[in-house]
Amino acid sequence: MQSDEAQIRTLVSTWMTATQAGDADTVLSLIADDAVFLMPGRPPMHKAEFAEGMKAQATPSAPSFEGHSDIQEITVAGDWAFMWAKLAVTVKPKDGSAPMARDGHTLTVLKKQNGKWLLARDANMLAPAKPN
Amino acid sequence: MQSDEAQIRTLVSTWMTATQAGDADTVLSLIADDAVFLMPGRPPMHKAEFAEGMKAQATPSAPSFEGHSDIQEITVAGDWAFMWAKLAVTVKPKDGSAPMARDGHTLTVLKKQNGKWLLARDANMLAPAKPN
Repeated sequence: MQSDEAQIRTLVSTWMTATQAGDADTVLSLIADDAVFLMPGRPPMHKAEFAEGMKAQATPSAPSFEGHSDIQEITVAGDWAFMWAKLAVTVKPKDGSAPMARDGHTLTVLKKQNGKWLLARDANMLAPAKPN
Repeated sequence: MQSDEAQIRTLVSTWMTATQAGDADTVLSLIADDAVFLMPGRPPMHKAEFAEGMKAQATPSAPSFEGHSDIQEITVAGDWAFMWAKLAVTVKPKDGSAPMARDGHTLTVLKKQNGKWLLARDANMLAPAKPN
């Protein structure tokens, strides 16, 4: 049996792999039904809207996605946990136009439901990446 | 004795009042020593750097600040809690130039230390406010 922290690390790596593969079902299986996604400049997004976005990404003309999440902290408090990470993503349009790189931090609240950790609240602070 | 949720609501209102008054000592007393502030486009900020920013705000030429936090959820898990809120702030430069309005959401992790709730991790997703 993995520790809670190890289970959460597995959730993150499954999330990243499934997102890059366009595997919406797997990503959605990691999200609590009452999840809330927060990001700058737009209203809170709930699971149904997130699912629509994932499905739109699964079309052949949708851009491909590469991402890396570098977990900085995981703290578990009973059936709740929080995590923050440094995230970098590159979106590559299929039409050959320039890739878009974004990076920044995420702060995520997770909850354990029926023995399984799920993403419950997510703050996404990605911004256009600055050139090195 | 107030409930944990009521104590956290009091922390938020004290925070907003003290920030508007430029009362750095009160604001800093609400922040855990290991706090981390996350926002788009810049590295994580720790308490010492936050304190420097507060002191810079306390000079007579610094802009004045008005803010309103509309708490959307508080969930308590033992000595940890998380909260998300809709925040709107207006910064008014002393030189009479146009005020800057920013709004968006915050996701905050709090912890109870020696019986007192403190801000521990904060994700700030404010962006320039769109005209109504």
